[in-house]
Amino acid sequence: MTRDCGSVAVQRDEMVEFARNYDPQPMHVDEAAAEESVFGELIASGWFTAALTSRLAVEGFLNDIRNVGGRGTDDLRWPAPVRAGDTLSVTLEVTDAEPAETNPYGLVETAFEATNQHDETVLSMVGLLYVLRREE
Amino acid sequence: MTRDCGSVAVQRDEMVEFARNYDPQPMHVDEAAAEESVFGELIASGWFTAALTSRLAVEGFLNDIRNVGGRGTDDLRWPAPVRAGDTLSVTLEVTDAEPAETNPYGLVETAFEATNQHDETVLSMVGLLYVLRREE
Repeated sequence: MTRDCGSVAVQRDEMVEFARNYDPQPMHVDEAAAEESVFGELIASGWFTAALTSRLAVEGFLNDIRNVGGRGTDDLRWPAPVRAGDTLSVTLEVTDAEPAETNPYGLVETAFEATNQHDETVLSMVGLLYVLRREE
Repeated sequence: MTRDCGSVAVQRDEMVEFARNYDPQPMHVDEAAAEESVFGELIASGWFTAALTSRLAVEGFLNDIRNVGGRGTDDLRWPAPVRAGDTLSVTLEVTDAEPAETNPYGLVETAFEATNQHDETVLSMVGLLYVLRREE
Protein backbone atom coordinates (compact mmCIF):
# COMPACT_ATOMS: atom_id res chain seq x y z
CA MET A 1 0.00 0.00 0.00
CA THR A 2 1.40 3.38 -1.04
CA ARG A 3 -0.14 6.77 -0.54
CA ASP A 4 0.44 10.31 -1.74
CA CYS A 5 -0.08 12.66 1.22
CA GLY A 6 0.02 15.92 -0.70
CA SER A 7 2.24 18.97 -0.41
CA VAL A 8 3.00 21.91 1.84
CA ALA A 9 4.83 25.18 1.22
CA VAL A 10 7.63 26.02 3.66
CA GLN A 11 6.78 29.41 5.19
CA ARG A 12 9.80 31.43 6.25
CA ASP A 13 8.22 32.89 9.40
CA GLU A 14 6.97 29.52 10.61
CA MET A 15 10.30 27.86 9.81
CA VAL A 16 12.33 30.41 11.79
CA GLU A 17 9.85 30.58 14.67
CA PHE A 18 9.97 26.80 15.03
CA ALA A 19 13.77 26.88 15.14
CA ARG A 20 13.82 29.72 17.70
CA ASN A 21 11.67 27.56 19.95
CA TYR A 22 13.17 24.14 19.40
CA ASP A 23 16.48 24.24 17.52
CA PRO A 24 18.12 27.66 17.91
CA GLN A 25 21.35 26.89 16.09
CA PRO A 26 22.92 29.64 13.95
CA MET A 27 22.12 28.05 10.57
CA HIS A 28 18.42 27.96 11.52
CA VAL A 29 17.92 31.34 13.22
CA ASP A 30 20.81 33.72 12.48
CA GLU A 31 20.62 35.08 8.93
CA ALA A 32 24.16 36.49 8.90
CA ALA A 33 25.67 33.29 10.28
CA ALA A 34 23.65 31.22 7.81
CA GLU A 35 24.98 33.28 4.90
CA GLU A 36 28.52 32.45 6.03
CA SER A 37 27.67 28.75 6.39
CA VAL A 38 28.05 25.98 3.84
CA PHE A 39 24.32 26.41 3.07
CA GLY A 40 24.52 30.13 2.19
CA GLU A 41 21.16 30.95 3.74
CA LEU A 42 18.86 29.91 6.56
CA ILE A 43 17.83 26.26 6.48
CA ALA A 44 15.02 24.53 8.33
CA SER A 45 15.58 22.54 11.47
CA GLY A 46 15.35 18.85 10.64
CA TRP A 47 12.70 18.64 13.35
CA PHE A 48 10.63 21.19 11.46
CA THR A 49 10.89 19.05 8.32
CA ALA A 50 9.81 16.05 10.40
CA ALA A 51 6.90 18.07 11.84
CA LEU A 52 5.68 19.13 8.37
CA THR A 53 6.01 15.52 7.19
CA SER A 54 3.97 14.46 10.20
CA ARG A 55 1.25 17.03 9.39
CA LEU A 56 0.82 15.70 5.87
CA ALA A 57 1.00 12.08 7.02
CA VAL A 58 -1.69 12.64 9.64
CA GLU A 59 -4.03 14.39 7.22
CA GLY A 60 -3.34 11.90 4.41
CA PHE A 61 -3.07 8.63 6.28
CA LEU A 62 -2.86 8.41 10.07
CA ASN A 63 -6.31 9.82 10.75
CA ASP A 64 -7.73 7.13 8.42
CA ILE A 65 -6.26 4.19 10.32
CA ARG A 66 -6.79 3.27 13.95
CA ASN A 67 -3.42 4.55 15.11
CA VAL A 68 -3.00 4.20 18.86
CA GLY A 69 0.44 5.75 19.14
CA GLY A 70 3.89 5.79 17.65
CA ARG A 71 6.58 3.43 18.90
CA GLY A 72 9.27 5.45 17.14
CA THR A 73 11.15 5.77 13.89
CA ASP A 74 14.20 4.11 12.40
CA ASP A 75 16.73 5.56 9.99
CA LEU A 76 15.51 9.15 10.06
CA ARG A 77 17.65 11.04 7.53
CA TRP A 78 17.80 14.61 6.24
CA PRO A 79 19.80 14.13 3.01
CA ALA A 80 19.25 17.66 1.63
CA PRO A 81 18.52 21.00 3.31
CA VAL A 82 15.07 22.61 3.35
CA ARG A 83 14.80 26.33 2.65
CA ALA A 84 12.02 28.89 2.92
CA GLY A 85 9.88 28.83 -0.22
CA ASP A 86 10.43 25.12 -0.85
CA THR A 87 7.42 22.92 -1.48
CA LEU A 88 7.55 19.56 0.24
CA SER A 89 5.56 16.51 -0.88
CA VAL A 90 5.14 13.40 1.24
CA THR A 91 4.57 9.84 0.13
CA LEU A 92 4.42 6.73 2.26
CA GLU A 93 4.38 3.00 1.82
CA VAL A 94 3.21 0.42 4.35
CA THR A 95 6.03 -2.10 4.31
CA ASP A 96 5.01 -4.48 7.08
CA ALA A 97 2.12 -5.18 9.46
CA GLU A 98 2.03 -7.80 12.16
CA PRO A 99 0.41 -8.50 15.53
CA ALA A 100 2.12 -6.61 18.35
CA GLU A 101 3.35 -8.32 21.50
CA THR A 102 0.28 -6.98 23.28
CA ASN A 103 -3.23 -7.59 22.02
CA PRO A 104 -5.40 -6.04 20.62
CA TYR A 105 -2.70 -4.10 18.81
CA GLY A 106 -0.81 -4.49 15.60
CA LEU A 107 2.50 -2.94 14.66
CA VAL A 108 2.60 -1.25 11.26
CA GLU A 109 5.88 -0.32 9.61
CA THR A 110 5.66 2.56 7.16
CA ALA A 111 8.36 4.12 4.97
CA PHE A 112 7.95 7.90 4.72
CA GLU A 113 9.64 10.14 2.18
CA ALA A 114 9.51 13.90 1.79
CA THR A 115 10.79 15.48 -1.42
CA ASN A 116 11.21 19.10 -2.49
CA GLN A 117 10.10 20.81 -5.71
CA HIS A 118 13.29 19.58 -7.43
CA ASP A 119 12.40 16.00 -6.52
CA GLU A 120 15.29 15.82 -4.05
CA THR A 121 14.64 13.74 -0.97
CA VAL A 122 14.79 16.00 2.11
CA LEU A 123 13.61 13.44 4.67
CA SER A 124 13.23 9.68 4.84
CA MET A 125 12.35 7.46 7.76
CA VAL A 126 10.65 4.24 8.77
CA GLY A 127 7.77 4.83 11.19
CA LEU A 128 6.59 2.18 13.64
CA LEU A 129 2.94 2.59 14.63
CA TYR A 130 0.71 0.70 17.01
CA VAL A 131 -2.78 0.29 15.57
CA LEU A 132 -5.97 -1.33 16.80
CA ARG A 133 -6.49 -4.58 14.94
CA ARG A 134 -9.79 -5.25 13.25
CA GLU A 135 -11.99 -7.68 15.09
CA GLU A 136 -11.86 -11.15 13.55
CA MET B 1 31.77 12.27 27.19
CA THR B 2 28.38 12.62 28.88
CA ARG B 3 26.42 15.77 29.53
CA ASP B 4 23.37 16.82 31.52
CA CYS B 5 21.35 19.24 29.38
CA GLY B 6 18.90 20.35 32.06
CA SER B 7 15.13 20.20 32.27
CA VAL B 8 11.99 21.69 30.78
CA ALA B 9 8.37 21.75 31.97
CA VAL B 10 5.78 20.54 29.48
CA GLN B 11 3.29 23.38 29.02
CA ARG B 12 -0.20 22.27 28.10
CA ASP B 13 -0.94 25.14 25.71
CA GLU B 14 2.32 24.73 23.86
CA MET B 15 1.91 20.94 23.72
CA VAL B 16 -1.59 21.13 22.21
CA GLU B 17 -0.75 23.99 19.85
CA PHE B 18 2.21 22.02 18.50
CA ALA B 19 -0.02 19.00 17.89
CA ARG B 20 -2.71 21.10 16.18
CA ASN B 21 -0.07 22.35 13.76
CA TYR B 22 1.96 19.20 13.17
CA ASP B 23 0.29 16.07 14.54
CA PRO B 24 -3.48 16.61 14.83
CA GLN B 25 -4.43 13.10 15.91
CA PRO B 26 -7.25 12.69 18.46
CA MET B 27 -5.00 11.64 21.38
CA HIS B 28 -2.99 14.84 20.95
CA VAL B 29 -5.69 17.45 20.29
CA ASP B 30 -9.16 16.14 21.24
CA GLU B 31 -9.65 16.06 24.99
CA ALA B 32 -12.80 13.90 24.91
CA ALA B 33 -11.25 11.37 22.55
CA ALA B 34 -8.08 11.30 24.63
CA GLU B 35 -10.09 10.51 27.76
CA GLU B 36 -11.55 7.50 25.96
CA SER B 37 -8.13 6.37 24.76
CA VAL B 38 -5.74 3.95 26.42
CA PHE B 39 -3.87 7.00 27.80
CA GLY B 40 -6.88 8.54 29.60
CA GLU B 41 -5.88 12.11 28.81
CA LEU B 42 -4.14 14.19 26.16
CA ILE B 43 -0.57 13.12 25.43
CA ALA B 44 2.16 14.99 23.60
CA SER B 45 3.03 14.33 20.00
CA GLY B 46 6.26 12.38 19.86
CA TRP B 47 7.56 15.14 17.59
CA PHE B 48 6.92 17.66 20.35
CA THR B 49 8.94 15.50 22.74
CA ALA B 50 11.70 15.38 20.13
CA ALA B 51 11.50 19.16 19.69
CA LEU B 52 11.81 19.78 23.45
CA THR B 53 14.73 17.35 23.58
CA SER B 54 16.31 19.25 20.71
CA ARG B 55 15.89 22.58 22.55
CA LEU B 56 17.72 21.30 25.62
CA ALA B 57 20.39 19.58 23.54
CA VAL B 58 21.07 22.76 21.56
CA GLU B 59 21.32 24.93 24.67
CA GLY B 60 23.35 22.34 26.59
CA PHE B 61 25.59 20.92 23.90
CA LEU B 62 25.12 21.62 20.20
CA ASN B 63 25.83 25.34 20.40
CA ASP B 64 29.14 24.49 22.13
CA ILE B 65 30.44 22.28 19.33
CA ARG B 66 30.98 23.19 15.71
CA ASN B 67 27.87 21.42 14.47
CA VAL B 68 27.39 21.89 10.72
CA GLY B 69 24.16 19.97 10.38
CA GLY B 70 22.37 16.79 11.33
CA ARG B 71 22.59 13.71 9.15
CA GLY B 72 19.70 12.10 10.99
CA THR B 73 18.82 9.88 13.91
CA ASP B 74 18.66 6.15 14.47
CA ASP B 75 16.39 4.19 16.79
CA LEU B 76 14.16 7.07 17.84
CA ARG B 77 11.76 5.64 20.43
CA TRP B 78 8.95 7.02 22.58
CA PRO B 79 8.67 4.31 25.26
CA ALA B 80 6.31 6.22 27.60
CA PRO B 81 3.76 8.99 26.97
CA VAL B 82 4.39 12.64 27.83
CA ARG B 83 1.62 14.61 29.53
CA ALA B 84 1.07 18.28 30.33
CA GLY B 85 2.78 19.15 33.61
CA ASP B 86 5.57 16.62 33.17
CA THR B 87 9.15 17.76 33.59
CA LEU B 88 11.58 16.36 31.05
CA SER B 89 15.32 16.10 31.59
CA VAL B 90 17.79 15.40 28.81
CA THR B 91 21.17 13.72 29.02
CA LEU B 92 23.48 12.79 26.19
CA GLU B 93 26.60 10.77 25.64
CA VAL B 94 28.98 11.06 22.72
CA THR B 95 29.47 7.44 21.67
CA ASP B 96 31.58 7.78 18.54
CA ALA B 97 33.43 10.39 16.51
CA GLU B 98 35.24 9.81 13.25
CA PRO B 99 36.25 11.69 10.12
CA ALA B 100 33.36 11.98 7.65
CA GLU B 101 33.65 10.92 4.02
CA THR B 102 34.03 14.59 3.11
CA ASN B 103 36.66 16.83 4.66
CA PRO B 104 36.82 19.00 6.69
CA TYR B 105 33.96 17.33 8.54
CA GLY B 106 33.68 14.74 11.24
CA LEU B 107 30.68 12.60 12.08
CA VAL B 108 29.74 12.51 15.76
CA GLU B 109 27.37 9.87 17.13
CA THR B 110 25.48 10.90 20.25
CA ALA B 111 23.00 8.93 22.37
CA PHE B 112 20.19 11.15 23.67
CA GLU B 113 17.78 10.27 26.44
CA ALA B 114 14.84 12.25 27.82
CA THR B 115 13.27 11.17 31.12
CA ASN B 116 10.26 12.45 33.03
CA GLN B 117 9.94 13.38 36.71
CA HIS B 118 9.39 9.68 37.57
CA ASP B 119 12.68 8.79 35.89
CA GLU B 120 10.85 7.00 33.08
CA THR B 121 12.46 7.26 29.67
CA VAL B 122 10.12 9.11 27.31
CA LEU B 123 12.50 9.43 24.36
CA SER B 124 15.74 7.84 23.28
CA MET B 125 17.64 8.17 20.02
CA VAL B 126 21.07 8.15 18.45
CA GLY B 127 21.88 11.42 16.70
CA LEU B 128 24.34 11.67 13.82
CA LEU B 129 25.94 15.10 13.51
CA TYR B 130 28.40 16.56 11.04
CA VAL B 131 30.91 18.81 12.80
CA LEU B 132 33.85 20.89 11.66
CA ARG B 133 37.06 19.14 12.65
CA ARG B 134 39.70 21.02 14.56
CA GLU B 135 42.67 22.02 12.49
CA GLU B 136 45.59 19.67 13.04
